[in-house]
Amino acid sequence: MNMRPLILLTNDDGIDSDGILALTRMMMPLGDVVVFAPDGPRSGQSNAITVTQPIRFNKIQEREGLVRYSCNGTPTDCVKLALNEVLDRKPDVLVSGINHGLNSAINVIYSGTMGAVFEGCENDILALGFSIDDHSQHPNFSYFEPFVTRIVREALDRKLPYGVCLNVNAPRGEIKGVKVARQTRGYWTKEFERRSDPRGGFYFWMTGFFHNEEPEASDSDEWALREGYVSVVPTRIDMTAYDQMENIRSWKL
Amino acid sequence: MNMRPLILLTNDDGIDSDGILALTRMMMPLGDVVVFAPDGPRSGQSNAITVTQPIRFNKIQEREGLVRYSCNGTPTDCVKLALNEVLDRKPDVLVSGINHGLNSAINVIYSGTMGAVFEGCENDILALGFSIDDHSQHPNFSYFEPFVTRIVREALDRKLPYGVCLNVNAPRGEIKGVKVARQTRGYWTKEFERRSDPRGGFYFWMTGFFHNEEPEASDSDEWALREGYVSVVPTRIDMTAYDQMENIRSWKL
Repeated sequence: MNMRPLILLTNDDGIDSDGILALTRMMMPLGDVVVFAPDGPRSGQSNAITVTQPIRFNKIQEREGLVRYSCNGTPTDCVKLALNEVLDRKPDVLVSGINHGLNSAINVIYSGTMGAVFEGCENDILALGFSIDDHSQHPNFSYFEPFVTRIVREALDRKLPYGVCLNVNAPRGEIKGVKVARQTRGYWTKEFERRSDPRGGFYFWMTGFFHNEEPEASDSDEWALREGYVSVVPTRIDMTAYDQMENIRSWKL
Repeated sequence: MNMRPLILLTNDDGIDSDGILALTRMMMPLGDVVVFAPDGPRSGQSNAITVTQPIRFNKIQEREGLVRYSCNGTPTDCVKLALNEVLDRKPDVLVSGINHGLNSAINVIYSGTMGAVFEGCENDILALGFSIDDHSQHPNFSYFEPFVTRIVREALDRKLPYGVCLNVNAPRGEIKGVKVARQTRGYWTKEFERRSDPRGGFYFWMTGFFHNEEPEASDSDEWALREGYVSVVPTRIDMTAYDQMENIRSWKL
């Protein structure tokens, strides 16, 4: 019987991105790795699922301890297909990333990287997402690497309760340590660039700036990142605002 | 000065769907209505944003108390564009739906309807999503209508704290009343139908069944719906699992 952990990897930057290649290399010493990832970029795909088109996937590599599948769907589709159609047992851990760009603060709800993590979490699989503050094609993961390995090892050892996963983000460059933090309150602003097309019509590109509503909050993930720490936000898929239930019950409904 | 509430409407079934047409009719007596919705179905689009393609929108109707815009983006794109590029003031309320099909339990994370609601919530706008247990093209909204109107009126009167929105679902047919509930724990199973194409390749359609992990929990939204009640789940966009922070701090990170 194979006692090595089964590690499912995915991401939202696509199967050929540096982030998932680096993650694959980091995870192979920890167990048997199955990569099931989108065939190209799916940034900002959140928990989107593909319901109006058929989905396909192909095995593109198989060797000792590593199998890789490429899929035309979203990150969430990838996790669903891996669990339903490919793996013969539940993975011990799902790791998503390493995303090129942060998924801190409210970005957790837009992130395809974290969408895949939530999908694993819903299915009672230990699930972690990793992201780095570098949108370039070839980020330097060397400072982050020992933290990624340690966090996954520790998670495999300690486990998490049902419905809770980890959103891990790293600053660029040297790292001072780890802060367990909460999701920073904030929003996006100036989100579009308006352009004219050659026929006089107009169109918009999404862009924008994140506005941090609480830049001084030292327990927030944005603060930790700005100060040079890796932020680890325990994140739950039950979005119920329990503290508001009594309030809403007092409404005349 | 115009003192009528400004009401922003969107959905994920598309601007011509029965659900948003019904919602528009219900909301017009309550204020000035701006509809900004996708030009076709965007079910399962979650909080997806369009970052790799340009986005366009067109004004398709304008009359006293009502303006309608059609957009090629996701529900979340629609809210962002409406707030950034179209409206000259912050809406008093954002209402999304009425979705053809439930967004109860874990479906809140896949739902384009609720993605739009979260986008409003992030921007400090009172935001509510409405869905009905009927996937057909022409649901009967007549039983739900008085509840929709009353819930929006009451929300405008009472407000919600920052970061909290409402996820409102209705059963099909007669309604016994309203239950303020929490998100039911559960997951999807048997999610794909495998088919062969004429060239011998295979592809998958997403389908599946929701497995309710706690069918007897009388405080859950699935229970309320099954018993004939409208479920109102106060929902928060801060996904931090606060109760796990001390636990994770004890890990060797």
